[in-house]
Amino acid sequence: MTNVINGRKIAKQLNKETKTRVDKLKKEKGIIPGIAVILVGDNPASVIYTRNKHRTAEKLGMKSILRKFPKDVSQAEVLQAIHHYNDDPTIHAILIQLPLPKHLNQTELIEAIAPEKDVDGFNSKNVGKLYNNENGHYPVSCTARGIMTLLHSYLDKIEGKNVTIIGRSILVSRPLQSLLINENATVTMVSLHTDNIDYYTKHADILVVAAGKPNLIKKDQVKLGATVIDVGINRMANHHLVGDVDCDDVKEVAENITPVPGGVGPMTIATLMQQTVDLAEWNK
Amino acid sequence: MTNVINGRKIAKQLNKETKTRVDKLKKEKGIIPGIAVILVGDNPASVIYTRNKHRTAEKLGMKSILRKFPKDVSQAEVLQAIHHYNDDPTIHAILIQLPLPKHLNQTELIEAIAPEKDVDGFNSKNVGKLYNNENGHYPVSCTARGIMTLLHSYLDKIEGKNVTIIGRSILVSRPLQSLLINENATVTMVSLHTDNIDYYTKHADILVVAAGKPNLIKKDQVKLGATVIDVGINRMANHHLVGDVDCDDVKEVAENITPVPGGVGPMTIATLMQQTVDLAEWNK
Repeated sequence: MTNVINGRKIAKQLNKETKTRVDKLKKEKGIIPGIAVILVGDNPASVIYTRNKHRTAEKLGMKSILRKFPKDVSQAEVLQAIHHYNDDPTIHAILIQLPLPKHLNQTELIEAIAPEKDVDGFNSKNVGKLYNNENGHYPVSCTARGIMTLLHSYLDKIEGKNVTIIGRSILVSRPLQSLLINENATVTMVSLHTDNIDYYTKHADILVVAAGKPNLIKKDQVKLGATVIDVGINRMANHHLVGDVDCDDVKEVAENITPVPGGVGPMTIATLMQQTVDLAEWNK
Repeated sequence: MTNVINGRKIAKQLNKETKTRVDKLKKEKGIIPGIAVILVGDNPASVIYTRNKHRTAEKLGMKSILRKFPKDVSQAEVLQAIHHYNDDPTIHAILIQLPLPKHLNQTELIEAIAPEKDVDGFNSKNVGKLYNNENGHYPVSCTARGIMTLLHSYLDKIEGKNVTIIGRSILVSRPLQSLLINENATVTMVSLHTDNIDYYTKHADILVVAAGKPNLIKKDQVKLGATVIDVGINRMANHHLVGDVDCDDVKEVAENITPVPGGVGPMTIATLMQQTVDLAEWNK
């Protein structure tokens, strides 16, 4: 019997735990975790995502600032806002909603966020610590960490598992690779340049698909009993959302599988909230 | 016919090019590339390595400082030396010879090196940039970069190649993984936790072995026509050096193979020299 991984339920449980931690921080230390979300322009998906992040943070009892800039804002103005929040002791977490308009230098903006407030874990300092498996506390990609939470909910251990990740993005695939390697998994990231993707997918105890191609993966590419994590969110002509995995087909061989929607998606915001409280605790 | 990769010859050619660049920098810009090597204690291998680095730098016309500390030096004293070289405009490259005595905090020392002088590429800022494949100039692990130079000398392209790396060290395997992924290879790092290493080694167009186990790899584990890179240096009871690959055996199937000694080894110092001049040029 295949388990359809219920991301909504796990995210809800995580939010409940985060709320408890927020209440405790307030009561015992007088600290209110604070997050600043920077939105540039009016990309419809970004508007929805940032609003959801803002509302969830408020609902969990945090301080939340949604700082909006017009799409033609200058690099200097966004930098100034980042420096402002870097210096603001009531803000523990800073996030720049991606993608940004082309005229802005995304790398420079991300690098300008103080590493200890970099709640998305994209600053090279935090990326390097993750890649080197350094001891101590540092933030990591929220989607990648959210996927680890899902995996830990359904699998006894990650150690020794063969993992194939389709896609090489710096936002999800690469940090997820590091998190998995650091838990002693054997990981291969495959891409369009890989000549025989099936060699790796068929050997995968855990298959993560972040390719951005609707229904790319079918059951003949998947190992019997695998755990399949679908990071894709593709909006079809009929407005339905579908993942990168043909879920109905792959269900016949997978032991655990995430649906789209309702799988990985809800974990990103819940992990963002979790990590905002982490930052408030680590840097208090 | 198997090519035995001649690391000594390639290193010598690289040193020649580095010498030309040093002369040009002096003549045209009045800049003498400078490197400071920090040695703590008297580990025999470290004493030899640092002396070789120091002498090679001088031979190529660079400024070279070999700063020695007794093995019981305090963290604060080493930190002070690092800060001193960070502030010294005649020093472009700082290296701490590893391993360090146990009482020293290695991570803190490496993180104290200014990222633009971190000639070993171990600072988390540089590691993160490499992992994220950021544009611009930054130093990377000298052994890993040296292996890339060897590969480029014998292979037309890296793109699309299946690569298996045995070992997961932060000094060689992880940065090499990043360099290969950034050139569009498909890379798997395997470890003691991997249940079926041969599944990955037999599929590898490029096999890199950094396991620290003498003669671990035999021909039945290697793909016909593979390029085999042996990072191992194991000193046997009879004082002979042997690698992690059974070279005579694997030669029968490999197209290109590095010997031990004379393969990867000579590339590390040559690349360190190359990267010292890079740093002097990038930060002039």
